[in-house]
Amino acid sequence: MTDVTLLPATELARRLRTGETSATAIMEAHLERIRMREPQLRAFVYLDEKVALAEARAADARRRSGTEPGPLHGLPIGVKDVLDVAAMPSGYGSPIWADHVPRADAASVAMARAAGAVVIGKTVTTEFATREPGPTVNPANPAHTPGGSSSGSAAGVAAHFFPLAYGTQTAGSILRPAAFCGVVGYMPTHGAIHRAGMKVMSESLDTIGALARTVPDCALMIAGATGRSLGDPAVKPDRAPHLLLCLGPTAEQAAPETLALMEHVAELVVRAGAKVTRREMPSIVTSAAKAHPVVMNMEGAQALAWELTQHREQVSNVLREKLETARALPADALREARDTFVAARAAFPGVIADYDAVLTPAAVGEAPRRLDWTGDPAFNLLWTALHAPCVSVPAGSGPNGLPLGVQIVAAPGKDREALQWAEWVRHALS
Amino acid sequence: MTDVTLLPATELARRLRTGETSATAIMEAHLERIRMREPQLRAFVYLDEKVALAEARAADARRRSGTEPGPLHGLPIGVKDVLDVAAMPSGYGSPIWADHVPRADAASVAMARAAGAVVIGKTVTTEFATREPGPTVNPANPAHTPGGSSSGSAAGVAAHFFPLAYGTQTAGSILRPAAFCGVVGYMPTHGAIHRAGMKVMSESLDTIGALARTVPDCALMIAGATGRSLGDPAVKPDRAPHLLLCLGPTAEQAAPETLALMEHVAELVVRAGAKVTRREMPSIVTSAAKAHPVVMNMEGAQALAWELTQHREQVSNVLREKLETARALPADALREARDTFVAARAAFPGVIADYDAVLTPAAVGEAPRRLDWTGDPAFNLLWTALHAPCVSVPAGSGPNGLPLGVQIVAAPGKDREALQWAEWVRHALS
Repeated sequence: MTDVTLLPATELARRLRTGETSATAIMEAHLERIRMREPQLRAFVYLDEKVALAEARAADARRRSGTEPGPLHGLPIGVKDVLDVAAMPSGYGSPIWADHVPRADAASVAMARAAGAVVIGKTVTTEFATREPGPTVNPANPAHTPGGSSSGSAAGVAAHFFPLAYGTQTAGSILRPAAFCGVVGYMPTHGAIHRAGMKVMSESLDTIGALARTVPDCALMIAGATGRSLGDPAVKPDRAPHLLLCLGPTAEQAAPETLALMEHVAELVVRAGAKVTRREMPSIVTSAAKAHPVVMNMEGAQALAWELTQHREQVSNVLREKLETARALPADALREARDTFVAARAAFPGVIADYDAVLTPAAVGEAPRRLDWTGDPAFNLLWTALHAPCVSVPAGSGPNGLPLGVQIVAAPGKDREALQWAEWVRHALS
Repeated sequence: MTDVTLLPATELARRLRTGETSATAIMEAHLERIRMREPQLRAFVYLDEKVALAEARAADARRRSGTEPGPLHGLPIGVKDVLDVAAMPSGYGSPIWADHVPRADAASVAMARAAGAVVIGKTVTTEFATREPGPTVNPANPAHTPGGSSSGSAAGVAAHFFPLAYGTQTAGSILRPAAFCGVVGYMPTHGAIHRAGMKVMSESLDTIGALARTVPDCALMIAGATGRSLGDPAVKPDRAPHLLLCLGPTAEQAAPETLALMEHVAELVVRAGAKVTRREMPSIVTSAAKAHPVVMNMEGAQALAWELTQHREQVSNVLREKLETARALPADALREARDTFVAARAAFPGVIADYDAVLTPAAVGEAPRRLDWTGDPAFNLLWTALHAPCVSVPAGSGPNGLPLGVQIVAAPGKDREALQWAEWVRHALS
């Protein structure tokens, strides 16, 4: 018998529909994996096997009672701990909220559950999805960070603890851990999923997305939750893409392995039929990268107003300093930075209109060998600020044998295209 | 001795700074008002005199201990019940949340408190700030609606229960009740105040703002909470404005009293020195009004995903039907409607560049004589969708003797100008 934890979610969904397997059997197999490896990996901040199994059994019961199965019926999902799940603790990666149990599911979770998904548990986030890490380690090497802030979702997907997980991104919190852990990260166009019930830091930036081991699995999760068709990325397009190879405004921060990777990837996609044009973004677009930290930190300082006044000593030093620096900026700086975003977003679709997608690094390099930092989001914040759909796919490994990733970016609203060409690139590299 | 409940917040703030009065004395005076009239008005969904007095005493104690008083020191504020206040029930106008007590203040509330404000209680909102009314009546005539969704904040300010209140607006939920109750409503540029801890319905539209009895009071509240200077609207500008008189795309819905009012206002502001140009918005701008309900309801249906799946029978019929209709729309309709917003927002500042502000009705007419409906936001949703700062000031009364208001709108970011010219117009009408 196949180990179901090795199967992609699309195949699990098929088997659940035909009755070849059950939500309970799938949950049991994943829990067995977790028992073996979670003590080292520490992907979960909350997992109660009984609760997870009960929810899986309830899904099977609904199916038996004749309820039409939703697109995510019976699939286990990990939920990053900045998204509320009713009756499960939601700590947001902060001791301030350690014993908090929300009454309601976040909208994202309620929608996934309404589509049939089974919440397996809450996954580790950095403090309020910012810099201070949680305990998770990289599944490829426990001395290395898994990346963040969606640390537990990325590591858990890589370790086959669950096939699908929610992550969130303000700078690089979905794409970077996906690259570091060798899985697929998909950040949809900003606003695709409502953030009600999320611990939002930056209203201008925060975006909910998916981590999984395949591109079609990511599409399945977000399409299933939103009811929006994202096409089938597994269907090969009838032509090869024209890709814009762009290192972005932080090109000089790329590690040697990343520069080598991008050359190698360019060669392979050209060999597979793609046309590749090398070009950097104009300054009206790249200025959004400079404005990004201003918006992130000034909005973050407002978001945590209660924590900063009532529980100041329980906010990490690094975060407190960052937010206090932001509060000391003139208030008009936020307005100007947002205006920069608006201008960049207006220009971006035109700049890439002649190409099918942008091909760019997913991270600086492989995951750093340290656990006190989740790495630099330098290669993600521009695209996040642009509200563009981004997909990171695994692409070889670095000098320490840790995974690398490349990122495919399309114009806002062009999520189908981003997923389709990401899968095309992944195929070209394999 | 003056009845302090008759004073504007700016004057109370001055007296608190000099020590002429205390937060406790101010709170006691307001509580006395409330005892007399709240049984009829029903502006509060939660008020505990002991809690309110204890917070006022704590403000006085901080002052005595030498703590530098914040800009809102000692001022009582009413908080609309879609914004969390720690340890006070937050029902969001829905029986689903009736017994919910949040742990934290909303960011807006924490910021106001950090500036010294004293929360007096939670004010009535319609169901999730949508259509189904709460129990509040219009202070000018209890057979009429106070407007909504910020019903309790508007009525409570009008009845001198508190000098300042938070409201929120998705369509017309600050400006309309302000007009109906004869007070000032100020919706800042979208995004001025972080919505963490708010029960958000539409992420693209929902904006937190202020209700008060004067324009400078509104400026004081939002400037105090955000730390952003909004100038002093009480200082008379050294010239008269050039106003764009625009009835908007819903002009044909204006009641006769509103058409007469706008003519009368035009006459008075011209007499006061203003130049008035009459012109309607081009279709690229007005198209945002058509897209508004699509965004509001499609995002609302996502926002309430948990309520709609877990507590379906406790959602009002009117809201359930609206959200189900929205869910049946093709998913791409949301993207298209948001694109319409982007185009309208890009065009709007240019369209009004030659004018100091737009002068437009605040509501269809006076408050309807019914309590099962809070009235039509027809004259607000365009400006809300444009993310423009809007100020409504009282302007005479209608055929039933209920208050009317006019609305001053400026380009996004031009909050100072919106407040300054609103005060100028109010002065010209008085």
